[in-house]
Amino acid sequence: MSRQGVHARVSPEGSLEILSSKEVNQLKDDGEGGLYRLFRQCALAVLNSGSVTDDSKAILETYHDFDLALLQQPRGIKIELHNAPPEAFVDGTMIRGIREHLFSVLRDIVYANSILATSNWYSPERSEDVTNLVFQVLRNADILRPQSPPDIVVCWGGHSISREEYDYTKDVGHELGLRGLNICTGCGPGAMKGPMKGATIAHAKQRIDNGRYMGITEPGIIAAEAPNPIVNELVIMPDIEKRLEAFLRAGHGIVVFPGGVGTAEEILYLLGVLLHPENRDLPFPLIFSGSKENADYFEMIDHFIRNTLGDEAASRYRIIIDDPTEVARVMNEGMENVRRYRQESRDAFYFNWMLTVDPVFQTPFEPTHESMRALELSRNQEPHQLAANLRCAFSGIVAGNVKAEGIRQVDAHGPFEIVGDPDFLEPLETLLNAFVDQNRMKLPGQAYRPCYRIIEGG
Amino acid sequence: MSRQGVHARVSPEGSLEILSSKEVNQLKDDGEGGLYRLFRQCALAVLNSGSVTDDSKAILETYHDFDLALLQQPRGIKIELHNAPPEAFVDGTMIRGIREHLFSVLRDIVYANSILATSNWYSPERSEDVTNLVFQVLRNADILRPQSPPDIVVCWGGHSISREEYDYTKDVGHELGLRGLNICTGCGPGAMKGPMKGATIAHAKQRIDNGRYMGITEPGIIAAEAPNPIVNELVIMPDIEKRLEAFLRAGHGIVVFPGGVGTAEEILYLLGVLLHPENRDLPFPLIFSGSKENADYFEMIDHFIRNTLGDEAASRYRIIIDDPTEVARVMNEGMENVRRYRQESRDAFYFNWMLTVDPVFQTPFEPTHESMRALELSRNQEPHQLAANLRCAFSGIVAGNVKAEGIRQVDAHGPFEIVGDPDFLEPLETLLNAFVDQNRMKLPGQAYRPCYRIIEGG
Amino acid sequence: MSRQGVHARVSPEGSLEILSSKEVNQLKDDGEGGLYRLFRQCALAVLNSGSVTDDSKAILETYHDFDLALLQQPRGIKIELHNAPPEAFVDGTMIRGIREHLFSVLRDIVYANSILATSNWYSPERSEDVTNLVFQVLRNADILRPQSPPDIVVCWGGHSISREEYDYTKDVGHELGLRGLNICTGCGPGAMKGPMKGATIAHAKQRIDNGRYMGITEPGIIAAEAPNPIVNELVIMPDIEKRLEAFLRAGHGIVVFPGGVGTAEEILYLLGVLLHPENRDLPFPLIFSGSKENADYFEMIDHFIRNTLGDEAASRYRIIIDDPTEVARVMNEGMENVRRYRQESRDAFYFNWMLTVDPVFQTPFEPTHESMRALELSRNQEPHQLAANLRCAFSGIVAGNVKAEGIRQVDAHGPFEIVGDPDFLEPLETLLNAFVDQNRMKLPGQAYRPCYRIIEGG
Amino acid sequence: MSRQGVHARVSPEGSLEILSSKEVNQLKDDGEGGLYRLFRQCALAVLNSGSVTDDSKAILETYHDFDLALLQQPRGIKIELHNAPPEAFVDGTMIRGIREHLFSVLRDIVYANSILATSNWYSPERSEDVTNLVFQVLRNADILRPQSPPDIVVCWGGHSISREEYDYTKDVGHELGLRGLNICTGCGPGAMKGPMKGATIAHAKQRIDNGRYMGITEPGIIAAEAPNPIVNELVIMPDIEKRLEAFLRAGHGIVVFPGGVGTAEEILYLLGVLLHPENRDLPFPLIFSGSKENADYFEMIDHFIRNTLGDEAASRYRIIIDDPTEVARVMNEGMENVRRYRQESRDAFYFNWMLTVDPVFQTPFEPTHESMRALELSRNQEPHQLAANLRCAFSGIVAGNVKAEGIRQVDAHGPFEIVGDPDFLEPLETLLNAFVDQNRMKLPGQAYRPCYRIIEGG
Repeated sequence: MSRQGVHARVSPEGSLEILSSKEVNQLKDDGEGGLYRLFRQCALAVLNSGSVTDDSKAILETYHDFDLALLQQPRGIKIELHNAPPEAFVDGTMIRGIREHLFSVLRDIVYANSILATSNWYSPERSEDVTNLVFQVLRNADILRPQSPPDIVVCWGGHSISREEYDYTKDVGHELGLRGLNICTGCGPGAMKGPMKGATIAHAKQRIDNGRYMGITEPGIIAAEAPNPIVNELVIMPDIEKRLEAFLRAGHGIVVFPGGVGTAEEILYLLGVLLHPENRDLPFPLIFSGSKENADYFEMIDHFIRNTLGDEAASRYRIIIDDPTEVARVMNEGMENVRRYRQESRDAFYFNWMLTVDPVFQTPFEPTHESMRALELSRNQEPHQLAANLRCAFSGIVAGNVKAEGIRQVDAHGPFEIVGDPDFLEPLETLLNAFVDQNRMKLPGQAYRPCYRIIEGG
Repeated sequence: MSRQGVHARVSPEGSLEILSSKEVNQLKDDGEGGLYRLFRQCALAVLNSGSVTDDSKAILETYHDFDLALLQQPRGIKIELHNAPPEAFVDGTMIRGIREHLFSVLRDIVYANSILATSNWYSPERSEDVTNLVFQVLRNADILRPQSPPDIVVCWGGHSISREEYDYTKDVGHELGLRGLNICTGCGPGAMKGPMKGATIAHAKQRIDNGRYMGITEPGIIAAEAPNPIVNELVIMPDIEKRLEAFLRAGHGIVVFPGGVGTAEEILYLLGVLLHPENRDLPFPLIFSGSKENADYFEMIDHFIRNTLGDEAASRYRIIIDDPTEVARVMNEGMENVRRYRQESRDAFYFNWMLTVDPVFQTPFEPTHESMRALELSRNQEPHQLAANLRCAFSGIVAGNVKAEGIRQVDAHGPFEIVGDPDFLEPLETLLNAFVDQNRMKLPGQAYRPCYRIIEGG
Repeated sequence: MSRQGVHARVSPEGSLEILSSKEVNQLKDDGEGGLYRLFRQCALAVLNSGSVTDDSKAILETYHDFDLALLQQPRGIKIELHNAPPEAFVDGTMIRGIREHLFSVLRDIVYANSILATSNWYSPERSEDVTNLVFQVLRNADILRPQSPPDIVVCWGGHSISREEYDYTKDVGHELGLRGLNICTGCGPGAMKGPMKGATIAHAKQRIDNGRYMGITEPGIIAAEAPNPIVNELVIMPDIEKRLEAFLRAGHGIVVFPGGVGTAEEILYLLGVLLHPENRDLPFPLIFSGSKENADYFEMIDHFIRNTLGDEAASRYRIIIDDPTEVARVMNEGMENVRRYRQESRDAFYFNWMLTVDPVFQTPFEPTHESMRALELSRNQEPHQLAANLRCAFSGIVAGNVKAEGIRQVDAHGPFEIVGDPDFLEPLETLLNAFVDQNRMKLPGQAYRPCYRIIEGG
Repeated sequence: MSRQGVHARVSPEGSLEILSSKEVNQLKDDGEGGLYRLFRQCALAVLNSGSVTDDSKAILETYHDFDLALLQQPRGIKIELHNAPPEAFVDGTMIRGIREHLFSVLRDIVYANSILATSNWYSPERSEDVTNLVFQVLRNADILRPQSPPDIVVCWGGHSISREEYDYTKDVGHELGLRGLNICTGCGPGAMKGPMKGATIAHAKQRIDNGRYMGITEPGIIAAEAPNPIVNELVIMPDIEKRLEAFLRAGHGIVVFPGGVGTAEEILYLLGVLLHPENRDLPFPLIFSGSKENADYFEMIDHFIRNTLGDEAASRYRIIIDDPTEVARVMNEGMENVRRYRQESRDAFYFNWMLTVDPVFQTPFEPTHESMRALELSRNQEPHQLAANLRCAFSGIVAGNVKAEGIRQVDAHGPFEIVGDPDFLEPLETLLNAFVDQNRMKLPGQAYRPCYRIIEGG
């Protein structure tokens, strides 16, 4: 596929970025330690927002001649683009939301690098340093707003869902928005776009002109799940674990819509964290919701969780089917509980310092054929440890499905192998097969070739 | 039908209304010259926004025990509501957009009365006085914004349209909004809501947080076409003729979507005004548009216009089928023409002073069995006069279909009679029958009983 | 004196004015019923803001060739000025505050005329109509802000005061401003400018960026007391009585600084209104204040009041000498009393509907040789009636000192004659002589030629 | 002296600070590497704003029991104060400007420490690192505004000046403000407060509600020159050299008013930098100005510069006496030159990257008896090197006069000794004696005991 790219110069407007000469040079540097490649890759992803593929490799190929350069100007930095995706423009002018995303990418890449490359306080092994890094990236992105009460509802769910599922997420977003709540997602299409659209309309009806539509992403996932231009607060975390931690620290409650393996990964991450003994009393409103036709889906998920992690895990969430108003009401009450708890414990509204995140959930999982095969998937371990390992399994499948590096590995060496206790792998296999049957692995229109193999025994 | 109404007290917030004791008393006055009844009726209409009926009589009956009272308070007026429609509330709190509408109603009723009842400059027979009244009501409602270039696109079309037609109007609104244009409608459901929704999402993408969603209505029509809460500038003009004049003076271009008799009335009014010789050189972008399945509809309208008013009339509009981007591009160019023309002639951007509106289009038409029968419907008259008479015919049918007074008359005395030249009435009858067949007379789900009879000969 | 005037075109920016063609024509009309002369006279006055004379006749002569014209433009009205006072400009651009004043003048002249000339509800004899007119002019000028608690402190005092007196008013304004209070004055120099300057600095320190600096004036007084450009809410009331009523209805408390006859007139008006039996329980914080050297002055005023109106009158005010912090503290407490009272009686914060203003204080007093001579100045009448008559006497002296028409009459027919009981006129004469001795009649540098004669006996 | 301190809890409002637990702990840490002492000292200084002493030792003694603690709260950090100076409060509530200053102090101390203590890129010896540090501290303080054209006028001059001198600086500030220019100073009293007051009033007249009143200070100087609450952008640079560099990089032009040794230090620093060959063509508007009675003062300074640095140095400034309007006009033209130059060279408006600052001006000068004695003060060196040494001499005298550490040293070991060529030291001694005679060394009311001794020969 080849398309006519657009040449343009754009200035920051929403988020005015000011860079030092040194930072500009880092972004131009194509060599070791330079940030050019990362910047180009993420920039292309946000510009590709209107497009309908989720195959990041395909995107990179289509726009192989895309390029961008930084220009120092009297009123700050400009970005010069060559062969940029035309979907980002209206009559030759870049959509302002996308322009903001471009500069958010720039801001976060420069900032994360300033810590990762030149500070001597950060060690990826120290749990508190990881949390501090998450905090600082969010603070630098101006995401933390001390004056707001808890009102950020994280919405998770598939980017590849049916029209009916999509309309349902819109209705839930509308009801949340009518109650003045804000939306945070992983910022792709599907269940990550619907709630924002619904909330936008509801905020217009309530005359809320500072509604927040937050997107938290990371370089590996952004190409497959390009942020919708409605997203007005975009953060690019350094990697997927920090992204997940950011959802939990900055969000105040979570609604999970139907999805595929990515959603399952997120659910396992979340339950794994919440099952930590120190988090037992921490209020964290969590709702699984979908329209009538999704009742089976959530029953299946519920079974899987009860069969693997146990009933205590299941007590942390509530399933609400086909009732957007009830979802919003329950979430609104949950916000009030969070508010009261933080007030009593003098913890910040804007960052959940009290949540304990076990280091196992902070360590990046690099899915390779070796690491996938090595995952311990058996019942004789603590629930939150087991949740961690299951999370990694799903993370590997997501990578094999949609991430450039994962796709490359599977192309080269065949499917990842997942090994474990037979009685334990059974619910897993059932779930994965159901995902395949229900077209939850990829965007519709493509036949799914599994990137994994279940191997019983180990 | 009987429903559980809500009791509440609401304050103005968006449009802070300050009333004198005298004005408060007028609004409380249920007698001759008092404004209470008008206020109650319009208030009920805006509160009924979420509902799906367009039968104003039914609304009045359902909420027969609805009542409201004004309270003078330290921070201004409050309105106390009894048995108000629950759709206007979320968890017991009135949706802010609807609260604003309530106070817009109050503002416009008081203001129009101050001119109509106590000023000695206004005479309904003087064309310039009518225009001045339209100007003053709009100015008082803060609708006229001198700093904006021409950017208000009036969208007309049916409130009773199919899901596909509705989605199409949303797409057009989205493309208009991406180009920074604003939307003005008659503020009911259907083609009057779709463009606003689309534009709201597009404005969010373009970070336009002062998007304008204007609704211009009048006491007779408001109950049947309750403003959507997205409408953030609502004006209640004294009657339908001033409402139509307001569209033409405050709007800068018009898109007509498929509709029924109401839409036909608006088209005839518009062409009648534009056909006036003095308006020949005035740019006024006018587009008829719909999705593929509406191609026939607009062909039918086009035939009707060419057969009755002639080809010159047809030269004032452009028909664009199934291409929202093209509609928005053409309209955007049209805005630029309007801007240039007003600049050259030093006319205000915010009010089309140069448009000549013939007094025949300013005089209220009271549809009664007599006045409907008396309409001259023959070819031997000037096109703009003919357009005026046709407009009245459609106006009467709208009244008989959805307005309380019209319904009452038809209930009492049978259908209105429309009399005229046989060869002339034929295209009219064809059109009306098509409207009936296509369910364009009433909201779906109700069998249509015609409120008119075509009588050839006269 | 002759000066080089400036030619310029200015647009409204702060207060965007939109006029109908009809209103533009009224403002251009130099004949009977036209508004041109009034507009020119007031416009010249506000443009002359930086100047140091208070002789309105001299101003009119200096700028006898000043002229102005209205231009209808795409973005609204522009005003074209010829031979305008250069003090209104900085490097060729009009100071924005003055530009706003120009358009406030235009707004209020047009609006007041629309009531006085074309409405049939207004009768100058009906007390409630006068109050309604005051209300409507203030509302139209956007002066009434329902969301604010009582916080408007009216500052009265001379425009011709010493540097020390001026600095003292600044200090009081500073302390009021530090407590978040706003300032309203008659908007000339001296005691009408000092408090605004002090409050401006204090508001900057408190980061109050919407501080209100209101000026209420009228066509006869504006030339002599041109508004300082700091004034950011200027209202031109139709005449002096409505101006005084506006102070009492829109303000929440009053500080009186040392002044001359104008200040004495204001004090008598104020006490006359407050002494009305129906106002007995109404809280209205009233402070007379000055620096140490003004202790005598206020003792003198206090004597005069006790000798003429009695001790009850004296109980309505408090004298605070040389203590700006105490003035601000007492006023702040007074605001709280007003707030509580209005809350309890459900009266508006923004307009003092409950205050009774006797018609005698609403009727314009036209000072002529006849009317001045006819004033009944004797003790055998009710205190508030007596206050009214004394007020008229001072009003006549102000006119003879600084108003164009008054100066003309005295030039033509000699001093006004004030006639009354000898024992009653004595304190009056003492007071007036003190004013002359203390240079409180005119701006310094001019010898004072009395415009009145005291005649005992009657 | 002992005073009744105030206990209070304050929240950030203007500058919302969000700290990590780690940062909070650093600020509480009283030990080696902790920030508590620095924070307490600077906090006390800003709270002492209203006071009239400039003796920082005296301040520390008066408030020896002053203490402050950080509290983590749901809506962010609060600061709890014990025995705080009462001048910072109005009726028990801290003046908001001062509250903002408190949090600016906190922000800058934490941020500078994050670079100085934990980053591995910064080396105080590398000129570009110093500049980068200045840039980053300013950026973090949100001082750099890319959308503004050059409009920041730095005003330097004594904090201990006469009433007439003070009024003159106010008039200059007023004229600058009328032209929309903003003010930046070292943020103490006298010539650092006057221009801000004048500009505040002028901005009110021009309806500029985002006027900038920047103060750039450093921990050593802040106690002696506490920021006036009008300052709405306060930055605490790590030391005096970075403070001076910040003035030159962030400001666009400089007006120097009469002052004492501090002002002379600033002049020498400035000329030393501008005399660098690479800065020859760089436009940098520089005006020395004062009222009539200051004509002699500037003649004296002019002589001193011509006698020591030569005529080329004198060509960089312009002396304007007793003409505030001319100062503002010339400065306004200078801004336009800066704008054009930056535009042509594509350099940022908000940070003067092109200015070369020789490392000698970036190295902190620690005034001790040794370092003062070692200064080479003779003519046989490059002008900019000579300017650097003279600058250090004045810097030492400032320290001996008003800084806690300097005063301590002089108390312990007697006056600093300044050694050099006799014919060169002569103009220096003349200048210093004149400063003493004119009371320019300390605030009035204190006899001056020199902290230095001039020793000819070396």
